[in-house]
Amino acid sequence: MTAPTHTIRIRVRYGETDQGGVVYHSHYLVYFETGRTEFLRERGARYRDVEGDGLILTVVEAELRFLRPARYDDLLRIETRVLEVGGARIAFGYEVYRDDSDELLCTGSTRLGSLSAETGRPCRLPPPLRALLGS
Amino acid sequence: MTAPTHTIRIRVRYGETDQGGVVYHSHYLVYFETGRTEFLRERGARYRDVEGDGLILTVVEAELRFLRPARYDDLLRIETRVLEVGGARIAFGYEVYRDDSDELLCTGSTRLGSLSAETGRPCRLPPPLRALLGS
Amino acid sequence: MTAPTHTIRIRVRYGETDQGGVVYHSHYLVYFETGRTEFLRERGARYRDVEGDGLILTVVEAELRFLRPARYDDLLRIETRVLEVGGARIAFGYEVYRDDSDELLCTGSTRLGSLSAETGRPCRLPPPLRALLGS
Amino acid sequence: MTAPTHTIRIRVRYGETDQGGVVYHSHYLVYFETGRTEFLRERGARYRDVEGDGLILTVVEAELRFLRPARYDDLLRIETRVLEVGGARIAFGYEVYRDDSDELLCTGSTRLGSLSAETGRPCRLPPPLRALLGS
Repeated sequence: MTAPTHTIRIRVRYGETDQGGVVYHSHYLVYFETGRTEFLRERGARYRDVEGDGLILTVVEAELRFLRPARYDDLLRIETRVLEVGGARIAFGYEVYRDDSDELLCTGSTRLGSLSAETGRPCRLPPPLRALLGS
Repeated sequence: MTAPTHTIRIRVRYGETDQGGVVYHSHYLVYFETGRTEFLRERGARYRDVEGDGLILTVVEAELRFLRPARYDDLLRIETRVLEVGGARIAFGYEVYRDDSDELLCTGSTRLGSLSAETGRPCRLPPPLRALLGS
Repeated sequence: MTAPTHTIRIRVRYGETDQGGVVYHSHYLVYFETGRTEFLRERGARYRDVEGDGLILTVVEAELRFLRPARYDDLLRIETRVLEVGGARIAFGYEVYRDDSDELLCTGSTRLGSLSAETGRPCRLPPPLRALLGS
Repeated sequence: MTAPTHTIRIRVRYGETDQGGVVYHSHYLVYFETGRTEFLRERGARYRDVEGDGLILTVVEAELRFLRPARYDDLLRIETRVLEVGGARIAFGYEVYRDDSDELLCTGSTRLGSLSAETGRPCRLPPPLRALLGS
């Protein structure tokens, strides 16, 4: 990964496991979201303020590869980076590791579209947001 | 139970189980909500329309007793009834059974407060809603 | 879609929405899972029995495209079909529609790997399961 | 609160909100669970090890009072304390605050039963666990 990444750690909750004894797969999309939220916060943008300013970033595509299972109480390390910034689009990439063993558990990406909260229609990313995303 | 009850059936989803091999306890609050939503629908009120009319019913108290575990793919039967209707309050009671064996798995109740969506302050239940709740 | 599909309907729960007023994206993976579970049930295989027989089908890849938002209380129609059956792999494809308007809301696919519950290692799909998947 | 409490902080995730713009009520049971898990960890017991040793602590009763709504991105402070320790029972109490404003949002308690993982029957809490719970 050449683009700068942001790292967070998340402890797996009991309710995130399933009867197979591992993290149920849909929760990785939540981990990804937490990753990009903290990525933005570190660069000075709180996503709650982005929405407060009338812009919604909505997930339009997601893809995930599950390599190894995460387990209850594992401390996960989520590495988030920007893959691409377009006029009204952002793509983020994610890698999820078991922090103590450094095993890669899951990789994925999400593509987000920028919408006006008022009209619900696509709108261009404001320059300050583009700037802090590094493009 | 003397008050009329409404019955729904819900199939336990895989992601609702935890590594203990049973339904994670927080999901019963979701089953309860589905129970009271369908209770209202059967009596002619869609909760989406209630909110559309500017009223929010928000849970202010909940209590649950877990008697036996529900398991993946179990067909649950949720029995919902009105316990009490006040000026700006409703209480619902719930019983959750494993449908095929008729075992009682969980009982509980939720007390809901009626709020104005505009002001966020308590407001009286409109008479038509009171009427269909049977009081 | 030329392969036979299986159709189920799911009512959106309140807790599946987010503050944007639409279904939070991770729940579509749960809808997909319900789709393939009922696909199997219709063909005579309960996934709980598959696991009881010592086989785990685990999601190894998923991809989703979100076209339009689903909303609270919408009745969703999920169309599930088999995309591909390999030695120890199955891929399912999904389309999620708002049932009354017939709008396509989300498409996606998941690739599942077949593991031995005992060893946790890949193992071939048993012939009866392959047969009911149509290959 | 006279008993010693343990404090953790949890950031509200986007997917934990609902279309009412507040945290959906079932997630407080997850926050409670995180509270008691970290309470145990601080005292030297990892719940994953408790289960590894063949003991399951299962929620048998829960009650919650919702005073004010939590919102997306709020930093919550969860205060957990032991209410009571019996032969095969523990009760925990919880208070959830919005950390910056110090507003009390939710209070509750859960009663847990101690089960043998092998037999599924109630079994006495082992003395070391009782000791670290302060009784």
